[in-house]
Amino acid sequence: MVHVNTAELIEKMLAGDRLALARLITQVENRSASVPDIMRRVHGRTGRTYVLGITGPPGAGKSTVVDRLTALLRAESASVGVVAVDPSSPFTGGAVLGDRIRMQSHALDPEVFIRSMATRGSLGGLARATSDVIRLLAAFGKQWILIETVGVGQTELDIIKQADTTVVLLVPESGDAVQTMKAGLMEIADIFVVNKADREGANPLMTELRFMAHLQRQSPQAPKDIDWEIPVLATQAQDGTGVPELLAEVQRHRGTLEASGALEKRRQARRRAELQALLIEEFTEQLSRWLQADGDLAATLEQVADGRLDPYSAVADILAAFRLGPGPSQ
Amino acid sequence: MVHVNTAELIEKMLAGDRLALARLITQVENRSASVPDIMRRVHGRTGRTYVLGITGPPGAGKSTVVDRLTALLRAESASVGVVAVDPSSPFTGGAVLGDRIRMQSHALDPEVFIRSMATRGSLGGLARATSDVIRLLAAFGKQWILIETVGVGQTELDIIKQADTTVVLLVPESGDAVQTMKAGLMEIADIFVVNKADREGANPLMTELRFMAHLQRQSPQAPKDIDWEIPVLATQAQDGTGVPELLAEVQRHRGTLEASGALEKRRQARRRAELQALLIEEFTEQLSRWLQADGDLAATLEQVADGRLDPYSAVADILAAFRLGPGPSQ
Repeated sequence: MVHVNTAELIEKMLAGDRLALARLITQVENRSASVPDIMRRVHGRTGRTYVLGITGPPGAGKSTVVDRLTALLRAESASVGVVAVDPSSPFTGGAVLGDRIRMQSHALDPEVFIRSMATRGSLGGLARATSDVIRLLAAFGKQWILIETVGVGQTELDIIKQADTTVVLLVPESGDAVQTMKAGLMEIADIFVVNKADREGANPLMTELRFMAHLQRQSPQAPKDIDWEIPVLATQAQDGTGVPELLAEVQRHRGTLEASGALEKRRQARRRAELQALLIEEFTEQLSRWLQADGDLAATLEQVADGRLDPYSAVADILAAFRLGPGPSQ
Repeated sequence: MVHVNTAELIEKMLAGDRLALARLITQVENRSASVPDIMRRVHGRTGRTYVLGITGPPGAGKSTVVDRLTALLRAESASVGVVAVDPSSPFTGGAVLGDRIRMQSHALDPEVFIRSMATRGSLGGLARATSDVIRLLAAFGKQWILIETVGVGQTELDIIKQADTTVVLLVPESGDAVQTMKAGLMEIADIFVVNKADREGANPLMTELRFMAHLQRQSPQAPKDIDWEIPVLATQAQDGTGVPELLAEVQRHRGTLEASGALEKRRQARRRAELQALLIEEFTEQLSRWLQADGDLAATLEQVADGRLDPYSAVADILAAFRLGPGPSQ
């Protein structure tokens, strides 16, 4: 094994070395011990990057839409990073094949960097890894980062919430799924797109989505920081129909966020939430180690597992056993 | 305001007073400060209770199936508690009307206790409240507890995972949703039911579900503690068709879990997970208080929010500032 100097890799990456970037992403994806060091070193190197999320059910045509959007952005000379995340790949096998078959039209363009990520072990780690990969791509100088993910479940939500603008992509057949996931969809969507809009059922679905978007705007759940009614667009991504209009809506959403100051406020809120998640993760890890190492605590845990002790009493006992509180100076 | 003595309420509840039970549930639902005390006092009073979860999309007929199952269980002289949880009620309004219109056939039966719960504030609290309500109903002596919830999202998963056996209820129109939620469905389902099975599309859906169940059994994700291929049943709950067969499958699943020792092992794992969740919750709350009270930490948090400090460095700083670790004796 060759010893890889992380500092050296980062220097190379910042100088535009795609291979160095790819190796750093692999370290991040594997949650290597060097991740905190990598993130410390690239911090502050990130430029003016905008993150666009594309989510939707399998078969909605997400890759095609991402491909078309990439082409339009490249026509405007913007550099583009694409991160395709498939948390459900043990079932669908999606991301594994992804790198090879997707977006061959951009394979030779040095200003497009494409990476697929799939579940390796815990799902929680995937959202964190995606967030770190976004930072790496930003430090690499990408002006646009497109995140593509299948849109169901907590992990996917955690992933897609890292986007500045989120497009929810549906197909005419998605009507039933829309009913099922209504609350979740409204929570994440900034733009609705009905792809394969030449198929039967496109119009009723668009009508339904417009009705939902209209209700949402007046509901207490609607975001208060910008005035935005979720637009509903039709595309046929296969031949590019409607995709320029989609990019225009993305730009309009970006403009609204920027003009109102909401973009920076939302990013701040995301960073706060991320810090809290990291703290809780670290605490949980330390706690597990203590529970294993400390005989008394392990015994308490087993009493709860066996049903001999109620969990509320156990929490009081365990937290009392730790110096949980402000540090040594107090 | 009359001062309510919790100990007295619990005595009454344990003696069979339904009003006392209802008032305790209200305290639990509102996350009153007395909850830890209530849970300590009812602990160990819980008898031989089996928890059955019914989940599925809106309109699948969950209430009707629960109603029919309740009737069958009452015919066997079992006492039944029903908890209908609707985390999405701000959108659907489901649980609010629920109590009044549902299950009128059991309204006068003292051996059936029905309670609807909806979101009040945070979703996270709803899963915890449901778990505590299950304990209260068990202490009250219910032999069967049926939990009914809409089956999408992390909260609903947290709720339904408290069941010993979980039935996923679908309708012939659910095909697209099944594709979208495949991984999530396979994770929670012990039994699949296609309700309203006289409608078009029932047979293809059942074939697809059987294929998924068959694949799942051979996948690395399949549970290892019991040998169980998820059965796929057809019902027409409106007239009761297929519901006795459903109850028979539930009993067969219960028997398999009991005979293999998996039931107790799974319950132990649930209690461990619940303790950990409670610990993390408590830690998070303390952490938020410290972050607000301690100027240095608040400054660190704001540096991260503004993008001046990376979150990994901040976590190292914050955890170093606390006596996080084994207690005073060490």
